[in-house]
Formats: sequence, structure tokens, C-alpha cells
Amino acid sequence: MVGLAGAAGTALAQQPPGAASASAATPASGNLPPAVPEWTGKPGAPTGGKLYGVPSLYEKDVVRHLRSTDKQYFSSSTRTPLQELDGIITPNGLFYERHHGGVPEIDPAQHRLMVHGLVERPLVFTMEALRRFPSESHIYFLECSGNPSYTAYGKTAAEANGLVSCAEWTGVPLKTVLEEAGLKKDAKWIIAEGADAAAMNRSIPIEKCLDDAMLVYSQNGERLRPEQGYPVRLLLPGYEGNMSIKWLRRLHVVAEPAYTREETSKYTDLMPDGKARKFSFYMEAKSIITAPSGMQRLPGPGFCEIRGIAWSGHGKITRVDVSVDNGQTWQEARLQDPVLTRAITRFRLPWRWDGSPAVIMSRATDETGYVQPALEDLLAVRGPNYFYHNNAMTPWRIAESGEVTNARL
Amino acid sequence: MVGLAGAAGTALAQQPPGAASASAATPASGNLPPAVPEWTGKPGAPTGGKLYGVPSLYEKDVVRHLRSTDKQYFSSSTRTPLQELDGIITPNGLFYERHHGGVPEIDPAQHRLMVHGLVERPLVFTMEALRRFPSESHIYFLECSGNPSYTAYGKTAAEANGLVSCAEWTGVPLKTVLEEAGLKKDAKWIIAEGADAAAMNRSIPIEKCLDDAMLVYSQNGERLRPEQGYPVRLLLPGYEGNMSIKWLRRLHVVAEPAYTREETSKYTDLMPDGKARKFSFYMEAKSIITAPSGMQRLPGPGFCEIRGIAWSGHGKITRVDVSVDNGQTWQEARLQDPVLTRAITRFRLPWRWDGSPAVIMSRATDETGYVQPALEDLLAVRGPNYFYHNNAMTPWRIAESGEVTNARL
Repeated sequence: MVGLAGAAGTALAQQPPGAASASAATPASGNLPPAVPEWTGKPGAPTGGKLYGVPSLYEKDVVRHLRSTDKQYFSSSTRTPLQELDGIITPNGLFYERHHGGVPEIDPAQHRLMVHGLVERPLVFTMEALRRFPSESHIYFLECSGNPSYTAYGKTAAEANGLVSCAEWTGVPLKTVLEEAGLKKDAKWIIAEGADAAAMNRSIPIEKCLDDAMLVYSQNGERLRPEQGYPVRLLLPGYEGNMSIKWLRRLHVVAEPAYTREETSKYTDLMPDGKARKFSFYMEAKSIITAPSGMQRLPGPGFCEIRGIAWSGHGKITRVDVSVDNGQTWQEARLQDPVLTRAITRFRLPWRWDGSPAVIMSRATDETGYVQPALEDLLAVRGPNYFYHNNAMTPWRIAESGEVTNARL
Repeated sequence: MVGLAGAAGTALAQQPPGAASASAATPASGNLPPAVPEWTGKPGAPTGGKLYGVPSLYEKDVVRHLRSTDKQYFSSSTRTPLQELDGIITPNGLFYERHHGGVPEIDPAQHRLMVHGLVERPLVFTMEALRRFPSESHIYFLECSGNPSYTAYGKTAAEANGLVSCAEWTGVPLKTVLEEAGLKKDAKWIIAEGADAAAMNRSIPIEKCLDDAMLVYSQNGERLRPEQGYPVRLLLPGYEGNMSIKWLRRLHVVAEPAYTREETSKYTDLMPDGKARKFSFYMEAKSIITAPSGMQRLPGPGFCEIRGIAWSGHGKITRVDVSVDNGQTWQEARLQDPVLTRAITRFRLPWRWDGSPAVIMSRATDETGYVQPALEDLLAVRGPNYFYHNNAMTPWRIAESGEVTNARL
């Protein structure tokens, strides 16, 4: 472990006020060692008091972030509190949301998935039938392509980049179901449609449908949550989240894309020449430091582990570099195993903050060799009208006081 | 994919009653395709309606299993509903519980962890201090060594083997903290003590403490749940769950084990010669078929994917074999990547049930070459008095009706 000489760590161990060591400590309150804390003195809550468990009352503020202006919207989003999380798995209760017609409450016994169009055998599936097919499980990230608009940087990591999460998904390879239906020669696209009030629909290239696309019914072990498409969703690893249609009810196999609203007026990139990039499916390599990050505060100079997450729609993350001097110099961070394709990868870098102002940021590289750009480089190519697919670095400013703020604000 | 010729899958796709194919279907109700279901016709619940999400109302019965006789017990357990889960991650709300003094509600700002005894520098840590240390994340299973007593086989997979779960844990390597404190020459064991009303304590060999032991504060991304030791627990990968002390408040470094109640009168194995095996730390290789499993019902002859989980305290699972003829012959199941050390591994085997009675079971092999035993083989060595550390195979009986029951009952 780099930079962790004994002296560094010793400074981390906090003693009770006025005590030089624990053995000599006069506890400041009855709960401090070696005294027995009050909760040891009485039985705790009964086992099985909550047969479906919930977080501690002390974590009640760790929730998805909803912009205060968005409360009544059915087409809106909530963001994962990245700055509060560790590891690579996002718990289902904190997985980001983006809905266009609210969250339908679907009876799985009533739900049907129809496969029709350019197929030999149009088919309708119950959930029971889908669950009988051979299944797979994979850990993949999902990210909204509007994560974030470059004009909408927030104060926290959640506000800045919280439309990304990662989970273990279980379901049926879409390929298996399409083989059942039998694709006709002209089958080149599939229009996927949701059962929500927006009837969200997108055109998916047949190559992706026959590659790693999944019909997913479980997330992190249990059935999908309503917000994630219960009882079944499409999952297109590495593609912009909007295409992984939730509450999936229809797969219409066709020869040409449908040019739906969500792939023409939305989710395209208006370039400087006035033309829009369309069908820009893959989310490119990206990373963000989650600690220290905006609205957090370093307790003082000394050891600080810089922690963050990186991901790429194109495959595995191979490297993350961190700068603590506003991009002048870079150090390679440690990547936590397992590094999985199209999953979030956790990175960490030991650092000793000297107490002077600093700007820190991270830069991801994926297995294609692609390197996450600075915002300026992205804007130089795409111009000021672009909105989606911003995978620029997020710099955080650390003040002498230890307070951390978004360096772009 | 073995055994998945077109005809097999076609039989799986269920049509609306009376319809030969979806395109010709007369829907049985207004919700069936191609009709628009009722939930598409109206806005769903507002985005952010639940800033900490919960499962669908239709999944309300997917909860931890509590034996009806145990409701008032503070020393009791609840079991993970293995038969309802997919993949390898157990969601935090369904992670199994085993408490000896109920679940304390601990204020993390008040909680302290003391390291003392045979160390150069006794130390007391706040949670803030612990979180500043270099961190790691690992996916590990946790299993109660009483999972299950061979005399207590249940009707479902949860009842039979639900005291095992798996999660991604984040925290500080215990080694790092011990290096801060500085171990003295005679330091051979650490007595770990919890802040619950049972003051649960166990003796941990120093070799494990300096290997992969962790001080864990997060589980599946978010902070530990109260039932899992919030705000900090010990995590000893591969060891019996009881030793991974929850609500950890004290690490007493000593020269000899403490021979606490939980490592003498409990959690030992009384052998036929009247002596008890003690300090049998590692959970040996084990597996169980979770689908089809007890209380489930096959809808009829035809394709059936046999699914299950395997794990070993000694490292990686290298192979799982499945028998569909009561142990006469065996077929090798597919293992789902990633196969991680001391984590649950998901296995699957395609099978065509011919409709006649069958007994199915799985058998795990780990990287040490150890093979999961049959109960009879285990009893032959350990005799009838043994209670803990039962890693025998679990056979399920499938009746002609498709009903699945525990073949031991």
C-alpha cells in the first residue's frame, strides 16, 4: 500500500478527547470504551422484526436525489447518491430512475411480452414462460445518456453524475427468444416498447439483440423493482439507458428503425454543423471521484484515500488516472478486482493532502484504448449545442478549509 | 446451449388461451397483446415517489423466513428465500439473520472500536476514522455453521439452507489496523466482541486477522444494515458466520483463545468418541438446487433449467455436478462467471423432465479438490450427535404431478 507508513495511520486513529491512548482514556461519555455502551445493556429489536430489512434510521438521508423542482413530474429522474456508496453494486433502493410516464404498477400474472413482425413464429410470453428459459446473470452498469448535461453540473457527485448505477442482472438472452421466434431475412432492427404510460419505444440494431442483450427479470438477486421495469425489461449492456426499455411488452422485428421521438428529437447530439448524431448507442468511458467530492469536507491535512468509479460501454476499464493538481500531473489508481466488462469498476488512490487548495479529478481508459476527455476537448469537437453523452471529467476543488466543491461552479 | 433445440423452446412460449399464435390471438382479457394494458392508459406513480425504493407489491411474500415458533426470540434467525432469488448477490433486505441478543440500534457517531491487549499502541477508532483508512471491496458469502442441523431439514430451500447469503463488502483490511496498533510478539489470537446485548465474542487466530479479515462498514454499496452489524462488523471470509462479529466494539489481542461460550458449548462438533471438534472455522464446500426446489411445482414435462448455488470457505468453486436420478449418474453444470473466491457461484443445467418421478441434487467441488458429501457419508464419520457444519447434499423429490418436496422428509 503506497504512502501508508505507520505515522500516517496513527494520525487517523481518533482518541477520546484529552486521552493520549485508549488504555489511558477517560471516556467523554458513558458510551465510550472501555465503558459498556447503553445498547449493550438491553436486548435489541427482535429477530425477524423486519422480514424485509431496511437501512438504519441513522442513514435516512441516504436516498436518491430528486431535484426540488421535479416533484410533480412524471417524466423526471432521481439520482444515485454516489458520494455515499462504496464498491460497485448499487443497492436496488438507490438505483437511479428515469421515467417518462411515471412508474406503472404491473400485475406480473397479467403481463405479456409479444414478439412479432419479421419472424417465422409470432409469440406471446407470460412471465412464467420467460422464467423457464435458460438464464444468465451479469453485473452491468446502466447510465442515462443525459448524465449530465454539461450545463447542469451539480453540487454533489449525485447531482453531477448520479444517473449511473450498477447491478447484477438475471434474465434470458434475447438471442434465445429470437431463435424461438425465428428471424426472417430482412430482420435488421427491433422496436422495443414499454407498457408504461409513455409507451417508451426505441429501435435496437439486430446485431445487439443477437449479442449480449437480455430480457431481465431480476436485479441483485430479487425480482426487478417497479422503477426498474418490473416484471421484465430489456437490458442492452453498454448502451444508453433509455434503450433498455422497461416494463417491456413488445418486440417488433422490422427492417428499418422507427425513428421514434426518443431517437430523433431526444437522445441525439446536435453538432456544430447543424446536423444531429443519431443512434450513438454506446456510453463512452467515464469516471468520477466519489470521495472526496462536492459538499464533503476533509477533516484536516493528512492521509486521504481518493475513491471513485469508472465504467465504459465498450468493455472493461483498463486504467484510471487521478490528478490532484488540476490535470498537471497524473497518478495511476488501483482498480478493485473483479474488473468486469460494462460494469462499474471501483478505483482508489492513497493521497496525503498537505492542506493547501487543490483540484482533483479522474480519467478513465478502457480496453479499446479510449481515454475519457476533458470537457473543453469534448466541447471543441461537439460545440455548445450538445446535450447528451457528456463523459467529460468532473473536477472537484478542495479549499484550505477542507471543503469540497464542484470546480466547474 | 445443451438440449435447447428449437422445439423445446417453442413449447415454452405460452399463448393466450385458444390462440395458435400471437398474431392470430384473440386476447382473453383487455390486458393481453395486442391490446393496450390498463397501466399504459394512465400515468404511473410519480418519479421519486419513493426516494428509497421497495419491491413491487406483487412480491410482498418474498421475505426472510422466520419459523413461526421463533417470533418472540431475541436469539433466533431468519433465512434468505433462496428459492426466490437469482444470481449471486443477496439483496440487503433479504440477507439472512442470526442474532443472540436482538438487533441494537447504534448511533454511529457514538460508536467506538477499541483495539487493545498485546499491542504497542492501544487505539480507539471512531467510524469517521475507520472510513479514512485505505479500503477494499470483495464479494463473499456468509453462512451460519448451523445451516442446517441435519435433523432440521425444511420444506423449502430457505428452510433447508437459507442461513447463507452473499454480498459485496467494503471496509478496511484488519491487517492495516493491526499494523497501526503494532502487534507484540506473543499476539496469537484476537477476541472480537460485539456491542449487542449478547456481547457476542469469539477468538480469531491471528493468521486470519493478518490475511483477508476485514472491518466492514458497507454492504452492497450502502452502509451495513442494522441486522448486519451497523455501523461496523468483522468479516472473516470463508469462516463460520458467527465469528464475523457484528456491531464490533472491541478487538482484544491475546496469547491464547478465550474459549467463550460460542466456541465451546456451541459451534463445536461432538464426535462419536465423545470429544468435540473445536475451532473448526472454515465452512466446507456446499451447494443446493434452488429451482426446482421444495414447494415449487413443475408446470409439466419438458424443458426445465436446474438452477442453484455453490460456495466454499476454502476458495473457488471449480465444479458442480447435478444428478437427476437420485445420485446414480451425474452431469456437470455450467458455472456463471465471475467465479470468485469464497463467494456464492451460480450454477445451471438444462434438463428435460420426462414427467416421471425423479430425485435431483447437486454436488460442489472446490479448488482444493474437496467434494461435497452425501449426508450418509458425513454421518458415518461424525455420528448422530453432530449438529453444526452440515454441508451435505440436499435432494429434492419431483412427483409425477410436478410437485417438488424435500426428499429427506
